[in-house]
Amino acid sequence: MKIYNSKDERFPEIFEELLGRGAMDIDQVTETVAALLKEIREEGNAALRRHIARFDRWEPADDAALQVDPAEMAMAYEAIAPELRDALHLAYDRIKAYHEKLLPKSWFEYEKNGSMLGQKVTPVDRAGLYIPGGKAAYPSSLLMNAVPAIVAGVEEIVVCTPTPDNEINVLLLAACHLCGIKKVFKVGGASAIGAMAYGTETIPKVDVITGPGNIFVATAKKLVYGEVNIDMIAGPSEIGILADGSARPDWVAMDLLSQAEHDEMASSILITDDAELAKRVVDEVEKALSKLEREAIARKSIEERGAIIVTSDMAEAIDLMNQIAPEHLEVMTASPMELLGSIKHAGAIFLGHYTPEPIGDYIAGPNHTLPTGGTAKFYSPLSVEHFLKKSSLIMMTEAGVRELGDACALLAHTEGLTAHEASVRIRLEEK
Amino acid sequence: MKIYNSKDERFPEIFEELLGRGAMDIDQVTETVAALLKEIREEGNAALRRHIARFDRWEPADDAALQVDPAEMAMAYEAIAPELRDALHLAYDRIKAYHEKLLPKSWFEYEKNGSMLGQKVTPVDRAGLYIPGGKAAYPSSLLMNAVPAIVAGVEEIVVCTPTPDNEINVLLLAACHLCGIKKVFKVGGASAIGAMAYGTETIPKVDVITGPGNIFVATAKKLVYGEVNIDMIAGPSEIGILADGSARPDWVAMDLLSQAEHDEMASSILITDDAELAKRVVDEVEKALSKLEREAIARKSIEERGAIIVTSDMAEAIDLMNQIAPEHLEVMTASPMELLGSIKHAGAIFLGHYTPEPIGDYIAGPNHTLPTGGTAKFYSPLSVEHFLKKSSLIMMTEAGVRELGDACALLAHTEGLTAHEASVRIRLEEK
Repeated sequence: MKIYNSKDERFPEIFEELLGRGAMDIDQVTETVAALLKEIREEGNAALRRHIARFDRWEPADDAALQVDPAEMAMAYEAIAPELRDALHLAYDRIKAYHEKLLPKSWFEYEKNGSMLGQKVTPVDRAGLYIPGGKAAYPSSLLMNAVPAIVAGVEEIVVCTPTPDNEINVLLLAACHLCGIKKVFKVGGASAIGAMAYGTETIPKVDVITGPGNIFVATAKKLVYGEVNIDMIAGPSEIGILADGSARPDWVAMDLLSQAEHDEMASSILITDDAELAKRVVDEVEKALSKLEREAIARKSIEERGAIIVTSDMAEAIDLMNQIAPEHLEVMTASPMELLGSIKHAGAIFLGHYTPEPIGDYIAGPNHTLPTGGTAKFYSPLSVEHFLKKSSLIMMTEAGVRELGDACALLAHTEGLTAHEASVRIRLEEK
Repeated sequence: MKIYNSKDERFPEIFEELLGRGAMDIDQVTETVAALLKEIREEGNAALRRHIARFDRWEPADDAALQVDPAEMAMAYEAIAPELRDALHLAYDRIKAYHEKLLPKSWFEYEKNGSMLGQKVTPVDRAGLYIPGGKAAYPSSLLMNAVPAIVAGVEEIVVCTPTPDNEINVLLLAACHLCGIKKVFKVGGASAIGAMAYGTETIPKVDVITGPGNIFVATAKKLVYGEVNIDMIAGPSEIGILADGSARPDWVAMDLLSQAEHDEMASSILITDDAELAKRVVDEVEKALSKLEREAIARKSIEERGAIIVTSDMAEAIDLMNQIAPEHLEVMTASPMELLGSIKHAGAIFLGHYTPEPIGDYIAGPNHTLPTGGTAKFYSPLSVEHFLKKSSLIMMTEAGVRELGDACALLAHTEGLTAHEASVRIRLEEK
């Protein structure tokens, strides 16, 4: 793992390169993805079944074979180890409790003249969750996507997940049962996004699609955006750590590796004002790497995309981190809460030495679906808001129109919109 | 204007067609727009100046000529009629007051073991507003886009607007001055969206782009989505009116026309349980049309895309309207508030006979940038939320990690992520 000093002459250049982390070349796959989507749109299930044979290497016997039997989910739930079931329940409860605090309320206020303004909040009718399958089938992703939709009050939740060789992760099925989800389809990749965006004979058209995925899924989400809403376009995972001399190097090292093991493209960056800590973290990373099950992935990620930056003070460290706007930000300093005011851009902020990022991945409560690649500058974590929409409310009394009508009509007139003007004026006329 | 009865045999087919209203064939212009964006990305100002010469028929003398002199805005503000200035101020104040109510707050909560969860709300650094120019230069659009950004606390607001033949609307300039906006650029169309998304030598890269525009602007916004955030992809304007026998046909007619005059592609749909009202509205529309300045546009829109649907009762009318999910929904019935609970999908809801839609376009307070083409099923009105983002907050105490650590480590282990597991376990070890 390389150490850079922010005072180095070449640092601006190196930092610029770090800022470009995780950029996905969507253009490269757009044509392929657009073609897959077109097939789904035009042929529905027939195209889905063809894509499954091609990408997941099994042939659904009929359209019904696309869907998982809910009884299978109930059986999976019963079959898993009790302590695992308890852990899933604890995660579910805590995620639910946190997301309930994010639920906006409808509201209205009356003015003195009796007019009313407000906002009505309603859930979308149908949500589609994309959950990666195969090697990277994470039941935690199901919880993190389903619970906000449940809390929002979405009536129907649809799940699509790829099942390579027609195999499906038992824990994922158990999590679906726990969430009360009935409609799970064995469809993955861009085809799944298309199916949920357009609808097929079997898979209902949804209003919002959320969930992680590879570049094909991300590109498909971008292409169907507007047809449906989406949560965000997510790239490889990443962590930024701000640490001072109070941090334990072995803890910092393990937290860096917990992102690195996700993906060779993942990026793990430590920024510290303590050159000694930097050196010791490098050693600890090396020591820990060899013990990991996913050593090869983590090693490649940390060597090619990891970085340690030594700054002259924590203010400079925070400034650099704000420019990075990491998906996950750990603040491992003596007084982390004192720095919170200066932190502007990050998907999730993990404060203090006892808050390892994985606690947020599974069980703390906040969502683990977070903006990557610097998009924390403008995107928010996945939330109940993604499964809701709002309608403005306006009710004018006659007195209200009399109070505002002239100014309104004048503005409409000035913009040359005479029917707008007349629709106000007509209400001001003597009866 | 045509009247349909929901009991007609052919009605489902007709209704299906109405639901397809406002669909934009983005594919058709994608190639052109992508090429324009690529030029902006690679050549910056040089491409901008070339595009201005081509589309707006004037040649900026230098890069500085792309920007409006703030002194010109101050002069415009002083030059407009006092009553117009007052109307703009009234609109500004009311829009500001409403949007202040939409401002979410940062929050946090401590658990018994001292751990803390919360959410930090921060504005984006820079917002870019696209405001159409030329014939359709609406100062109201500037207010509706700028005020939410101001209320959100955005540090720098950038405006791009096309200036055909190098002419710029005085009222737009006055509105910019009123909003305290200093950076206004004479750039329009897809080029403007590209300039704000990528940045040029003169125009800063922004984090969020909002504002209305034609199909080229909408397509450009879709293409840069992910690079920056956007508000929504908006199509032609539309109104849906739910009315019963208590509605005045002349008022209903004028409100339908107030959308129709926007655009030949605009759609105006009345659904009523009163066949007599339907007939009288048709007559009133005909009477009013000839008096409009924009008669030709309104006539084409109302004839080709307008519709009156007669249902057997209001429940059926509401059900159809929910399927339409109109941008603007007027409820012109005897007891509009009684119906509010059944209304699920609409950008803005105008309740009662004294609430013409234009009052919401200019002065009521809620935003006039609203989801079109049925996207009110999943999009919300433009809001302060578009200019903000949130960061999850997690701070665990040692006791907190001890309480949740085992379950968390078990879930991580089950997903095969051993570094995740270790980063939790390492904190549970005896010191």
